Amino acid sequence: MDFLIDNECFYKAISDVNKAVSLKTPFSILSGIKIIAYYDSLVLVGGNSDLVIEKVIPLAVDGVKVLEVIKTGSVVIPAIHLSEIIKKLPAKVHLRVNEKELVIIQSEEIITEIFGFNSDQYPMLPQIDETDYIKISSSELIEIIKQTTFAVSKSESQPALTGVKMLFKDSHLSIAATDSHRLALREIIVESNIKGSFIVPSSSLNELTKLINNNYSEIRIYVNESFMVFKTSTFTLFARLIEGNYPNITGLLPKNSKTTITLDTAQLLRGIDRACLFASEWKNNNVQLAIIDGKKLKISSNSSKIGKIEETQKIKEIKGETDLTISLDGSYLINALKVIKEEEIRLSFGGSMRPVLIEPINNPSYIHLISPVRSY
Amino acid sequence: MDFLIDNECFYKAISDVNKAVSLKTPFSILSGIKIIAYYDSLVLVGGNSDLVIEKVIPLAVDGVKVLEVIKTGSVVIPAIHLSEIIKKLPAKVHLRVNEKELVIIQSEEIITEIFGFNSDQYPMLPQIDETDYIKISSSELIEIIKQTTFAVSKSESQPALTGVKMLFKDSHLSIAATDSHRLALREIIVESNIKGSFIVPSSSLNELTKLINNNYSEIRIYVNESFMVFKTSTFTLFARLIEGNYPNITGLLPKNSKTTITLDTAQLLRGIDRACLFASEWKNNNVQLAIIDGKKLKISSNSSKIGKIEETQKIKEIKGETDLTISLDGSYLINALKVIKEEEIRLSFGGSMRPVLIEPINNPSYIHLISPVRSY
Repeated sequence: MDFLIDNECFYKAISDVNKAVSLKTPFSILSGIKIIAYYDSLVLVGGNSDLVIEKVIPLAVDGVKVLEVIKTGSVVIPAIHLSEIIKKLPAKVHLRVNEKELVIIQSEEIITEIFGFNSDQYPMLPQIDETDYIKISSSELIEIIKQTTFAVSKSESQPALTGVKMLFKDSHLSIAATDSHRLALREIIVESNIKGSFIVPSSSLNELTKLINNNYSEIRIYVNESFMVFKTSTFTLFARLIEGNYPNITGLLPKNSKTTITLDTAQLLRGIDRACLFASEWKNNNVQLAIIDGKKLKISSNSSKIGKIEETQKIKEIKGETDLTISLDGSYLINALKVIKEEEIRLSFGGSMRPVLIEPINNPSYIHLISPVRSY
Repeated sequence: MDFLIDNECFYKAISDVNKAVSLKTPFSILSGIKIIAYYDSLVLVGGNSDLVIEKVIPLAVDGVKVLEVIKTGSVVIPAIHLSEIIKKLPAKVHLRVNEKELVIIQSEEIITEIFGFNSDQYPMLPQIDETDYIKISSSELIEIIKQTTFAVSKSESQPALTGVKMLFKDSHLSIAATDSHRLALREIIVESNIKGSFIVPSSSLNELTKLINNNYSEIRIYVNESFMVFKTSTFTLFARLIEGNYPNITGLLPKNSKTTITLDTAQLLRGIDRACLFASEWKNNNVQLAIIDGKKLKISSNSSKIGKIEETQKIKEIKGETDLTISLDGSYLINALKVIKEEEIRLSFGGSMRPVLIEPINNPSYIHLISPVRSY
């Protein structure tokens, strides 16, 4: 293997596949990046047992030549050293591998030698059947991931809850995440010929949003027995599915409410954020909400050791009973409010011991549910 | 106590004095900020046993009214809660204290109550005799601190070496820092009527540079038996001196050298930085320097497990013997090169087992010394 490559372009690709490389792996070959040189492109692969990222570098990017392959071949190079070295090289990189898997990297008068691995030992990529797929814009995909993944469980005791449930039905995709105390649910309309329900690790989806970053493009999603695959023109991400049963979400949604109020999203977020200063002393970040005179919402939190904080906010519209006091985990409310882009939200209460339903006004595609905490 | 204050101005002052407040103190009153309201100013004090910061807020800043004191008085408020609350308040702050030391903070419709402490229990500030002092510009003070403090010892086994030695003699100030493997020494000319030698904690000097930040102004330095005091128009920093004997520095400086070479500072820094990638596997970050054919400097590092890196750089000028190989701790060299602003530097070698002297070309006021490491 022998090729010349633009140092910045090479470093970018290494950083991208490096997101899937774990240093803690017991298999030393998986701590490396597999590089395959073809005459028309360079392919980089990094992965662990749950996530694999493949990146393709063509001969030219935006009409500028970035790659020249002198001899095809493949090798696996320790990711951490490859990344650090290429980052610090000042100019075009010449990389070649000898028959003993010794990788020689040269840039101007700088010569580095790293011991590589034989690429035959690197695991094969999962097979994709490209017949059935969904098309989605990267910006929409990022939005729906950010609106749901934060609500997954942080505990491994129920592995299914650490993932996001993606349900494909007709031309709808619904995405749900819950840790059993709260639920985030988003629906979108997609062009799709996939059917079924899959649990995708939230960590893999979060890596996907970092990979996409600001490169707006179209993404195709494929599914096989064990993997959900996200493919763009420059990268492919393979996310291993989580096996197991996901709780029935429809049963959780409240059928009716006693009180419904409309509030300013950003103002409520700031108020809850302030109340959380003292709430942090509580096990569940307790913040109290109370309706005052049917016109105002009082947000308060108090701590016997530090003091207390309270403020009132104007209720824009109220329906139903005007008498309500409820305690919520303030951090859950902050998480939910942060991902709502709409200016106003509706909170629906079924009583002080029933979950609160949060919906953006004029956008029926996102709902959020938070269970109250006992404050006594 | 009762006053109205601009929230941003208040938050900035709280953040500044907070730098000296420790959460780990066994004296709970020291985890607070003392606030004293006079009719013409507000004074904030935060401190621990080694460092005290005092900040004064006048009635107006740049002609804009920021403070109105309704009733004078003083109180101590837990720093962490005060800082977090004021940061999150949207507008002008009204702060008042009742007879039970309960602090009531109000901003628009937000009301917070925090339990304060009686300010009588807060320690007195050290006394300053303002007769003798040095005047120095803040930018020059920042420069000399940054050029020396990094070389102090990180180990507490010799407390004097964790500080910087400041020697005032005639109109000279010399500042030295050493961890016994390297030495940074800077001299400046100052207007001074102070005489003597003092050991100042490097941590207090680093906090001082953060306080000054980009506010260029004149600083006066006072010294009493236990403290060095840095005073500007807006803040005063009291740094407790370290007691003990400082090693004799003059004896460490080499009298003559066998080889002297001139190099490009930035290029050498980049080269050493690259060589350190593999050097990290060594106990002392070993990087080898060797003069090749009397014309080039070879920088290399190798590791039996990972591989090796080497590069050659042009020597701009060479004097003395042309045969030299030496091993140095690369991270020490990086620290020293980073604080040199001059484009070129001179390295003077007395042999492979003698310390290397580093001097910026055309600036005799800064020198740096690094002991070699045994590479076998």
